[in-house]
Amino acid sequence: MNKLGVHAFVWEKGWSHDECTRAIARTAEVGFDLIEVSVMDPKQVDVDFTRKQLEQHGLGATMSFGLDASTDISSNDPEKTKRGQERLEEYIYLCRDFGATHLCGILHSAFQKYAVPTTKDGVARSVETLHRVGEIAAKSNITLGLEVVNRYESNVLNTASQAVEMCKRIGLPNVRAHLDVYHMNIEESDMAQAIVDTGEYLGYFHTGDSHRGYLGSGSIDLAGAFRAIVRSGYQGPITFESFSSRVVGQPLEGILGIWRNLWEDSVDLANHALMYTKAQLKAAQEAQKQAERSRLL
Amino acid sequence: MNKLGVHAFVWEKGWSHDECTRAIARTAEVGFDLIEVSVMDPKQVDVDFTRKQLEQHGLGATMSFGLDASTDISSNDPEKTKRGQERLEEYIYLCRDFGATHLCGILHSAFQKYAVPTTKDGVARSVETLHRVGEIAAKSNITLGLEVVNRYESNVLNTASQAVEMCKRIGLPNVRAHLDVYHMNIEESDMAQAIVDTGEYLGYFHTGDSHRGYLGSGSIDLAGAFRAIVRSGYQGPITFESFSSRVVGQPLEGILGIWRNLWEDSVDLANHALMYTKAQLKAAQEAQKQAERSRLL
Amino acid sequence: MNKLGVHAFVWEKGWSHDECTRAIARTAEVGFDLIEVSVMDPKQVDVDFTRKQLEQHGLGATMSFGLDASTDISSNDPEKTKRGQERLEEYIYLCRDFGATHLCGILHSAFQKYAVPTTKDGVARSVETLHRVGEIAAKSNITLGLEVVNRYESNVLNTASQAVEMCKRIGLPNVRAHLDVYHMNIEESDMAQAIVDTGEYLGYFHTGDSHRGYLGSGSIDLAGAFRAIVRSGYQGPITFESFSSRVVGQPLEGILGIWRNLWEDSVDLANHALMYTKAQLKAAQEAQKQAERSRLL
Amino acid sequence: MNKLGVHAFVWEKGWSHDECTRAIARTAEVGFDLIEVSVMDPKQVDVDFTRKQLEQHGLGATMSFGLDASTDISSNDPEKTKRGQERLEEYIYLCRDFGATHLCGILHSAFQKYAVPTTKDGVARSVETLHRVGEIAAKSNITLGLEVVNRYESNVLNTASQAVEMCKRIGLPNVRAHLDVYHMNIEESDMAQAIVDTGEYLGYFHTGDSHRGYLGSGSIDLAGAFRAIVRSGYQGPITFESFSSRVVGQPLEGILGIWRNLWEDSVDLANHALMYTKAQLKAAQEAQKQAERSRLL
Repeated sequence: MNKLGVHAFVWEKGWSHDECTRAIARTAEVGFDLIEVSVMDPKQVDVDFTRKQLEQHGLGATMSFGLDASTDISSNDPEKTKRGQERLEEYIYLCRDFGATHLCGILHSAFQKYAVPTTKDGVARSVETLHRVGEIAAKSNITLGLEVVNRYESNVLNTASQAVEMCKRIGLPNVRAHLDVYHMNIEESDMAQAIVDTGEYLGYFHTGDSHRGYLGSGSIDLAGAFRAIVRSGYQGPITFESFSSRVVGQPLEGILGIWRNLWEDSVDLANHALMYTKAQLKAAQEAQKQAERSRLL
Repeated sequence: MNKLGVHAFVWEKGWSHDECTRAIARTAEVGFDLIEVSVMDPKQVDVDFTRKQLEQHGLGATMSFGLDASTDISSNDPEKTKRGQERLEEYIYLCRDFGATHLCGILHSAFQKYAVPTTKDGVARSVETLHRVGEIAAKSNITLGLEVVNRYESNVLNTASQAVEMCKRIGLPNVRAHLDVYHMNIEESDMAQAIVDTGEYLGYFHTGDSHRGYLGSGSIDLAGAFRAIVRSGYQGPITFESFSSRVVGQPLEGILGIWRNLWEDSVDLANHALMYTKAQLKAAQEAQKQAERSRLL
Repeated sequence: MNKLGVHAFVWEKGWSHDECTRAIARTAEVGFDLIEVSVMDPKQVDVDFTRKQLEQHGLGATMSFGLDASTDISSNDPEKTKRGQERLEEYIYLCRDFGATHLCGILHSAFQKYAVPTTKDGVARSVETLHRVGEIAAKSNITLGLEVVNRYESNVLNTASQAVEMCKRIGLPNVRAHLDVYHMNIEESDMAQAIVDTGEYLGYFHTGDSHRGYLGSGSIDLAGAFRAIVRSGYQGPITFESFSSRVVGQPLEGILGIWRNLWEDSVDLANHALMYTKAQLKAAQEAQKQAERSRLL
Repeated sequence: MNKLGVHAFVWEKGWSHDECTRAIARTAEVGFDLIEVSVMDPKQVDVDFTRKQLEQHGLGATMSFGLDASTDISSNDPEKTKRGQERLEEYIYLCRDFGATHLCGILHSAFQKYAVPTTKDGVARSVETLHRVGEIAAKSNITLGLEVVNRYESNVLNTASQAVEMCKRIGLPNVRAHLDVYHMNIEESDMAQAIVDTGEYLGYFHTGDSHRGYLGSGSIDLAGAFRAIVRSGYQGPITFESFSSRVVGQPLEGILGIWRNLWEDSVDLANHALMYTKAQLKAAQEAQKQAERSRLL
């Protein structure tokens, strides 16, 4: 059974005690199984406080972030690679300390618009560091999810098949692909097929819609995506991500390119996302059962 | 706000006191606003008992049926036309007596596989009778919904545009088109466009899926259909229809061509249909709001 | 490389010398690789004349038909089964004599709206006869294509998975599934998945659209169907089928339920179908190549 | 009748005499009606040479470009606005001189990833300048197409409805919206609806696919887009745009984020795009005709 989650940015832009308290309480109230915590600086998280809040609401957690230009592990500057590894370790320890099961996002390169393609060496450097930190994560039972993002957010992993190949090169069972429908809508030839083909390498999943607003209010074939999830046998987290300038503000608004307020009311957005996800997952499961129900006598 | 309903065949094949009691109780328990009662013979309905059951659960009702070869109001046999009109009146009085607001289904011709196309005269005869019974229905505030069905179920109304034209010829505000996604999937060039183009002539709506199983488990673009409903401004009932030989049995199984059991558990099916409908309706409403939220500064 | 064909009913309703001459000439002029000849009585075909016409235009051929109530090999009347086997043999010899490579259509039961479901015995009888005639067909290198049709046209094979199971029971390499997008649109939960899952059991393929008019003018996701064909590795014939009362007339019009003229001009229809098929096949092939072109460095 | 075109970057990255000669010759050979010339500096175009090449092949032309940070007419720096207006005029005269009928692209702001949203004043400045240059363009019968692009390429026009509103504020019949399926796939809630709603304000149209590779090999519902074009009554140019690092190279590769070679063979790509466009346009026209062909008798 997939655990269903929601990205913290649906509720709050930061992770002060107040923000943490509200975000976790609302996630639990709506009925999600987990919250994906996302901070731009690991020091923002009070691990004991967070862990206590999660326990109080019986909620699970995952964590996401993106490396930046100064910590780009695919760069040919050893200083950046070193800082990137440190950053990844810092986040892994953070996950361990407040109880997050998955660390995901743009862990393989910088979350930025590059000006040139990556190189064979850049990819190799990324693989090397991810292997090292993957082993560290394994000790705390943490899965790393390498997010496949669109061309405007990285030049290393833009398609699911690239992520599968990177996971194979890293060769650790706890380093998996993190797919996101928003990015796949831009980069994949066939989103559903990409999900099915990722198969056992799928380790984390982001829903959302083409413009990052209400689930089902954009142009993504979400019914097809959910069918592919079911068909792939994926049992991991499915987390809803949506951004509004109403919550995130600067600098995130600018980094993500959120020029419109696609929603105002976080609770309404999240309630609908959970209901929509359950409705589509169930529909997908029933679609798969039709074959058994259509057996030749 | 559209009232959401479920077809009685999801629960029971007949309308004995026991069947009526169970069907109405379950419809209310799941949380629908109304039940679509459907019987092959109006004498099967105990109007006082039914009305009391509905009142007890605070549930609304609609009614559906199809004329047959012997009551075909599009035929050139005056006896059949006469019997057809009587049949329609009988159902209208039935609706009035137990409190159904809509009488819908194949009211324009026989529910059968025809062997030859209809004729200009056949259509005219149908229009004439429907005008007469439409006036009778109006006195009890009952809307007649002329169901647009696929080529295997009638030769008179196979597309939404034909139904709009028939409504125009009948010329009564309480005689409207009854659209059904199952049939539109076979006959319309563009289901969503057909719904939008029907516009104010839309008076009743059936959801379901391409194989008549779980909502969302077939091949119909339901997201597109719900967006079209929202765009058309339609505010009337939306009723879920699904058939399994588990419930309907013969002769209905044979008439409808139900050769597989696409589901076993009515409650599970109905719960999901309601959740799925609410999720898609809300997604469609949000999609429409995006335009306003994307205004040029 | 798939051979692309067109159903003879796009051109002519019968197979007199004149009709045969025109149908074959036009099929060749438009640029198809083969014509699917379809007659209700094998005696209508002058095999020598037909073969000569085909040779003259360098055109391939296939053949289709449906058993009827009096030749239903799934029935429990041994006389019908016997007549059914004779009928199938007659068509196989016809194919052999004028050079058709495939015999397809409703070979497993009667082309009719049944009133009751088939039975385990009915299916077994069908398998038995098809095994016998399959062996006869094999001697002339003829592939039998068991057409999967909607609930209104048979009660034996309504889904691709049923056809695969029947092929397995028959156990002959020249008896394969014949899939048709028109029917799959009604019966399959997921058309593309059904095609992929049929895999090596796929032996014949019909395109068309949801209302049987111009290719691409209905509601079927043809892009998805062509991608599935490419993905399945299918290399056999792809034939376009479309019916208009303009050509077919009675009794076919009535049997098929053609109540509207969805087209007037056979040449325009066929030219477009060929262009559309080539465009979609190429697009599907390119979609598959994107994975290779997106390799991690 | 829509004129069908192809973007020059399918053939060449620059516009030297050799590049111009080859690009125009190939565009004509494949059978397009027009070529969309695109240069980063107007001085790259030898107008007399280009005009002669076009005339020789009986080919039409359009032109596209994007303003940059130093010529951003939505900025609050009067120097940039002034330079932007000069740049726009320079391109308009270029169009006039070599015979291009449309100047389109990111004419309203800089082609760049912004860090902050635009402002009411920024939009007003853009409107003002576009009004001025629109009047100049009108004198040479040139239509300006304001391209609606995704959030990573501008912060001024991201949705069709914003472009319609901007056209209304500019108030000139020759300043229209330029829609592009690649961008709409990211930003619009409903691509087809956005096209229909743009209606008479639609002045230029770009096809392509979600990843900017072969037409029909990505995830965009192109069938739906073509139906919307037909429904909207749009009669203007439809131009195919696709980028491969095989042709464009740096700096364009970097600006556009082309990290993969989605194709190698320009001729194969362009041939297919033209065939695919014709097939879909015809299918869309036939879909619209079905309503007329489905009239009630």
